[in-house]
Amino acid sequence: MPLFDRAVIVGVGLIGGSLGMAMRQRGLAGEVIGVVRSEEAIPEAVARGAIDYGTVDLEVGVGGADVVVIATPPEAVAAVAARAAAFLREGAILTDVTSVKATIVHAVEACLPPRATGSFVGGHPMAGNEGRGVSSASPALFEGTAYLITPTPRTSPIAVERVADLARGVGATPVRMDPEEHDRAVAFVSHLPYLIAAALVSITTPSAAIAAGPAFLGATRVAGSPVELWGQICRLNRDQILRALHRFQAELSRLERALTDGDGLDAMLEQAREARMRLPLPGPSGAGPVL
Amino acid sequence: MPLFDRAVIVGVGLIGGSLGMAMRQRGLAGEVIGVVRSEEAIPEAVARGAIDYGTVDLEVGVGGADVVVIATPPEAVAAVAARAAAFLREGAILTDVTSVKATIVHAVEACLPPRATGSFVGGHPMAGNEGRGVSSASPALFEGTAYLITPTPRTSPIAVERVADLARGVGATPVRMDPEEHDRAVAFVSHLPYLIAAALVSITTPSAAIAAGPAFLGATRVAGSPVELWGQICRLNRDQILRALHRFQAELSRLERALTDGDGLDAMLEQAREARMRLPLPGPSGAGPVL
Repeated sequence: MPLFDRAVIVGVGLIGGSLGMAMRQRGLAGEVIGVVRSEEAIPEAVARGAIDYGTVDLEVGVGGADVVVIATPPEAVAAVAARAAAFLREGAILTDVTSVKATIVHAVEACLPPRATGSFVGGHPMAGNEGRGVSSASPALFEGTAYLITPTPRTSPIAVERVADLARGVGATPVRMDPEEHDRAVAFVSHLPYLIAAALVSITTPSAAIAAGPAFLGATRVAGSPVELWGQICRLNRDQILRALHRFQAELSRLERALTDGDGLDAMLEQAREARMRLPLPGPSGAGPVL
Repeated sequence: MPLFDRAVIVGVGLIGGSLGMAMRQRGLAGEVIGVVRSEEAIPEAVARGAIDYGTVDLEVGVGGADVVVIATPPEAVAAVAARAAAFLREGAILTDVTSVKATIVHAVEACLPPRATGSFVGGHPMAGNEGRGVSSASPALFEGTAYLITPTPRTSPIAVERVADLARGVGATPVRMDPEEHDRAVAFVSHLPYLIAAALVSITTPSAAIAAGPAFLGATRVAGSPVELWGQICRLNRDQILRALHRFQAELSRLERALTDGDGLDAMLEQAREARMRLPLPGPSGAGPVL
């Protein structure tokens, strides 16, 4: 029996499309409907197996859905959620996949109609690749990754559990965090690393790039991701990103001094090595408070 | 017919051991002899398939060798090369695998005996993993990677071509650079990224690490590498690393200002995206001056 009779994905891009593919291939939904901005996007989304059918009409899509996953660009999520909530039937769940949570979760909760109170569950699968659009989507995108879920005191526990089931269903490990804690954490482990990769490739000359090995190419891969997405993330989580950036700049300055003076460098590098060795792995063996 | 009748590897660790395994499995050498610091290291190196036999006596190892690969920690290379050169037979080649070249290449050339002039070829396979020792070695370590070769005007062209054959033999693409150009390039694409990873994991709290996805774990993997190795690299290439670090800090400050002011950020990120897209891939399709 599927988790959901009717799942609706608003925005069938890399993440939305991958979710649709995973839900369809794993039998998690009786049908997957895609809500897209343009009719022209429907044939590819269907051909890729991301959705059963598509529509440009949010009301048509959302009416009768058991779960609505908003996978639009970050700055559109709150407005789409407000519109979708108006058509949401009782008991249906609304969730998103955005890399920023506090702003979005509180904006969405502020505009939910009374009967939909508790139906919104902030979500953030820690998965992706440097591609864009449904053409880069993959049903395996979420396997072995953490799926962050950020309920508030208003969120229905049943809705949280249903989104956790969805996360498990697509092969991820659900991890619960509050929205503010989420935004502080991802500033360090996702948003700052993106800016670092962007800075690093910007200063790498073609003659230096000749020496680039797989480690460099892998570590900077994220800098090739769409700027629309990352520009929006940077604006929505600006304060936390700046905080993480300042911490990073201070740590770099400490390393710079140790390198210049030749004093204490090995001790700093050894502390870093031990910190890296302590990092939990994602997935069921991780140290996180798994739902 | 093997490339070399007798290959000697001084220091059978991650890189030396992987070279030995690759040379033996691919039939590149009639025999591979390991010179190690302690007799106790020999059984594992033999059991792993890295060497045919081992010795702690450099003279025994090097005498009769066609190629001697010095794969010791960076700060030991010049001294080992000077000792090995004394036992080197006419026409034999001496090479190393160190991540820093100018200091080492010039130090080695300064102490080569007259009959060995031209026999030393600086080498640097752009391959590795976060492991250490022969237990982490793999015969596939070099496949698809760049193998930087840094001849000087004194280096024999025949010796350069023999090391390029070795690089191709283990599955890598030989790329020629001069030693100073090499050190500038790897400061940007290898040494600075290591320091960045070290700084990033140092500031990542356990609660933030819960949200770490595969991209973060992959990008910071190198920070788990042995500190002895990286401390030595940092000292040997300090000036170039500081230069790269200062460029990086300036670029981060530009991003910080754009993020704070909300002005020009997307344009900077788009330039970075295009820079990432232009990066050559390692291997035969790369844009480097392949030997």
